[in-house]
Amino acid sequence: MRRGARTSKREVRKAIRSAESTLNQLVPQVLDNPYPPLCPLTSDQLEEIHNASMTVLESLGMEVTSDRVRAMFQSLGGSVDDATQIVRIDGETIMALIAKAPHHFTLTPRNAANQLVIGGRRINCGLVSGPPNVHDRINGRRPGNFFDYQSLIKLGQTFNVINFFGNQSIAPTDLPANTRHLDTYRENIMLSDKVFSAVPIGKGRIQDAVRMVALSRGITTGELSEDPSLFGNINVNSPRKLDEAMSDAALELAYYGQAVIVTPFTLLGAMTPVTLAAGLVQQNAEALFGLAMIQAFYPGAPVVYGGFTSNVDMRSGAPVFGTPENAKANLAGGQLARRYGLPYRTSACNASNTTDAQAVYETQMSMWSAVLGHGNLLYHAAGWLEGGLVASFEKLIIDVEMLQNLISMLSPIRTSEEELGIDAIEAVAPGGHFFGTEHTMARYETAFYTPLVSDWQNNENWQAAGGKDATERATSLWQQAIETFEAPLIDGARREAIDEYVDRRKTQIGTSEP
Amino acid sequence: MRRGARTSKREVRKAIRSAESTLNQLVPQVLDNPYPPLCPLTSDQLEEIHNASMTVLESLGMEVTSDRVRAMFQSLGGSVDDATQIVRIDGETIMALIAKAPHHFTLTPRNAANQLVIGGRRINCGLVSGPPNVHDRINGRRPGNFFDYQSLIKLGQTFNVINFFGNQSIAPTDLPANTRHLDTYRENIMLSDKVFSAVPIGKGRIQDAVRMVALSRGITTGELSEDPSLFGNINVNSPRKLDEAMSDAALELAYYGQAVIVTPFTLLGAMTPVTLAAGLVQQNAEALFGLAMIQAFYPGAPVVYGGFTSNVDMRSGAPVFGTPENAKANLAGGQLARRYGLPYRTSACNASNTTDAQAVYETQMSMWSAVLGHGNLLYHAAGWLEGGLVASFEKLIIDVEMLQNLISMLSPIRTSEEELGIDAIEAVAPGGHFFGTEHTMARYETAFYTPLVSDWQNNENWQAAGGKDATERATSLWQQAIETFEAPLIDGARREAIDEYVDRRKTQIGTSEP
Repeated sequence: MRRGARTSKREVRKAIRSAESTLNQLVPQVLDNPYPPLCPLTSDQLEEIHNASMTVLESLGMEVTSDRVRAMFQSLGGSVDDATQIVRIDGETIMALIAKAPHHFTLTPRNAANQLVIGGRRINCGLVSGPPNVHDRINGRRPGNFFDYQSLIKLGQTFNVINFFGNQSIAPTDLPANTRHLDTYRENIMLSDKVFSAVPIGKGRIQDAVRMVALSRGITTGELSEDPSLFGNINVNSPRKLDEAMSDAALELAYYGQAVIVTPFTLLGAMTPVTLAAGLVQQNAEALFGLAMIQAFYPGAPVVYGGFTSNVDMRSGAPVFGTPENAKANLAGGQLARRYGLPYRTSACNASNTTDAQAVYETQMSMWSAVLGHGNLLYHAAGWLEGGLVASFEKLIIDVEMLQNLISMLSPIRTSEEELGIDAIEAVAPGGHFFGTEHTMARYETAFYTPLVSDWQNNENWQAAGGKDATERATSLWQQAIETFEAPLIDGARREAIDEYVDRRKTQIGTSEP
Repeated sequence: MRRGARTSKREVRKAIRSAESTLNQLVPQVLDNPYPPLCPLTSDQLEEIHNASMTVLESLGMEVTSDRVRAMFQSLGGSVDDATQIVRIDGETIMALIAKAPHHFTLTPRNAANQLVIGGRRINCGLVSGPPNVHDRINGRRPGNFFDYQSLIKLGQTFNVINFFGNQSIAPTDLPANTRHLDTYRENIMLSDKVFSAVPIGKGRIQDAVRMVALSRGITTGELSEDPSLFGNINVNSPRKLDEAMSDAALELAYYGQAVIVTPFTLLGAMTPVTLAAGLVQQNAEALFGLAMIQAFYPGAPVVYGGFTSNVDMRSGAPVFGTPENAKANLAGGQLARRYGLPYRTSACNASNTTDAQAVYETQMSMWSAVLGHGNLLYHAAGWLEGGLVASFEKLIIDVEMLQNLISMLSPIRTSEEELGIDAIEAVAPGGHFFGTEHTMARYETAFYTPLVSDWQNNENWQAAGGKDATERATSLWQQAIETFEAPLIDGARREAIDEYVDRRKTQIGTSEP
């Protein structure tokens, strides 16, 4: 409906959408690591760390604030001190429980095409989750809020290299704390059709996630427990303390057949001794304790071994990431997870204050080590900044570019006769060039990875185009992605059922805890 | 000699020098890769590429502009067409020649502590070399010049992770082209005591390097040929053309017992077919041809297999680096070099116009793949920008930080009883922290890598300190390094002999070619 020369907003949006091809993406794909894992620990060292972890659990024990968890360990022969809430348990019992866990499992979101296999050589990348703040170059640094939450989910849905959403991309601090999980679940379901995390604090938030995701798939919660959609990551309160809110959430997830990741939050020099070996011993003891607990209550429940060992800046106590110590821990954590036949969750983090060279080299250190350590879930793989205090829109775009590069590098080298190209070599005389040859023309559009962010103009043209650095260019890319976003279709009845559920639950919860 | 309140320039410099401890460096070390190499090619694929390379040499051949090189190949049974200058040679002959090359060798500069072992698992990192331009944030982009050349050598000498200098960090275009090699050699020797490259264009520049480096060590050129100091990198004029200036330089280096790297300049889609397999076939054929030539004239001469396969931007034809294709080529090149028992030269490059996120993620792609591909010589490991058109002072600093991180990551995890730290874990109650414990206090200064560039202040402090990104911070670091630079001592008589040599040769050469 064209009226005179005026261009309608609808037409502008359509034009932008048709230019979407400039958002250079990899096609959706499942990614299996073709390389053997990089192993910093010798097999003897791996056993030393395993044995020391067992000693920690047997001799020093874990503080467990949940009565039912202490009682369960007591029933298995553990030594329980109810005054100190310390549980000591022998390694043989722990290992027997860990042996019940599956080596791999699947999670299926409302769009089955986005199903995740977790375990083996599969690599799945997750959006940043958890920051209290958000930043972009246009609007600056601000507390996490619901509008930006929605934008981040849109970006995570848009980019094919993002496979899942961790627990809330940012905290939407403008919404009431006791019901905001309902709002974020609804956005996860409406704006996306990928796997997302439940909010693993207490039981109520888990139940809401279970019911809402079942509605989104049009199945019962009973069917959901046979064919899970959700996961949750619980942290151990390191050193050696398992809080009831965490164990409750973990056990509630497992009760409904959903997956649980147990990740000790082990920063060398703060929550563990400064030595990397001790940090790994403690991480391993704490992770295995939490995972064994789940298997004791729900044998065979899908679980993931989580590693999040990095160090602190000893001058300030601030957590840092992407350090050599963090990278080694990412690699060694994979060795430990594989020793127990467990899927492995690791991360790609950094501690920079801005999306600069530091943010990138630190992220690359953690991303490469996460991949080479055979991480199955790469948490915070896009958008993490400031040691996790900020989700950054520009960093998210840069990270997607880095993931696309790394994933492309993992694709095999093809060596068919045509690819080996002796005829193609023959077609060009010594000292000539291959620009216009038939072999080139047939392949030039797809032969190489096409970057999302990289600018390969010569200096003169780059300067003439404004001399924008990669971070500046990232701004227009996330803007474009949000501007052209279209939510994945959802059945109207399911949408309505979810809206009704959220309204009902908000009324039920009122000002109390969910 | 203090006079009143005035602070002398000498005192200021002294104060700056005493603050030098803020230039956080790794101690000098030899670095052996502890990990097995990453291999994108199956062993069958490796043989396919080898066989195809042999077919290229046997059936298509190489254009060789040097009469004596063509004659030599003819004497070995090669088929030589003097009209087209094409040499065809069978694979068996090539392999018999390659088998004469040593698996590893050493290069010794005037300071024997900086000796390089080249081969095996050893990693040596080189400063950027070759750019026609130079850039820093203070003075902008400008043509290469002698003053900046000196500054770059000072930086390469300062940082312990830099092990060698490639062929001229920048072209000093303000000096006469026919004698500038004398000036740059002199600065390499006076401002540094590390291994450097001869300028491998024709014979004269090689002879000058040989004589000057012999003078710097106080040995004869005969002694030097038994105990080499120098290397030179020659490029094949891809596709399949070996120019006389290159073969002359290579053979002159080998005549004097100095090392030669043969590196085909193979950009996929320009100098080779677009397919990576074909690029590797061609790289391999060209490199082996050049290396076999050297072994034919000088059996047992120290040589290095060079790989420099990347791609071009198919829209502009511009060379790009740090792409997935470049990373895979870096890894596969290592497989090829090891198949022949040859040391391996590779690179850490990027194609960004500025020291931004792109420069860093591209460099990380090439740097990680160079290391994981078991490169023995990492060319351009610090300071390369704009696809090699610029040497950047800030990029150099960022690269040193990246190398330091990567090198620290390669150090082993120690697992002594004290490192495993069960007692240290016991010393802190569940939920407590390890900041002030004895175990922490005894180790906190050395437990973690201390960064050169990374800023780990919290956001408020970082903003208060000016909110400088890593590239901005790099400026003051290179300034500080140059301000506090002290040239390594050299014997006065040797210095004089070198100065005399340069003066005499400049007179001899006049306006002619060296």
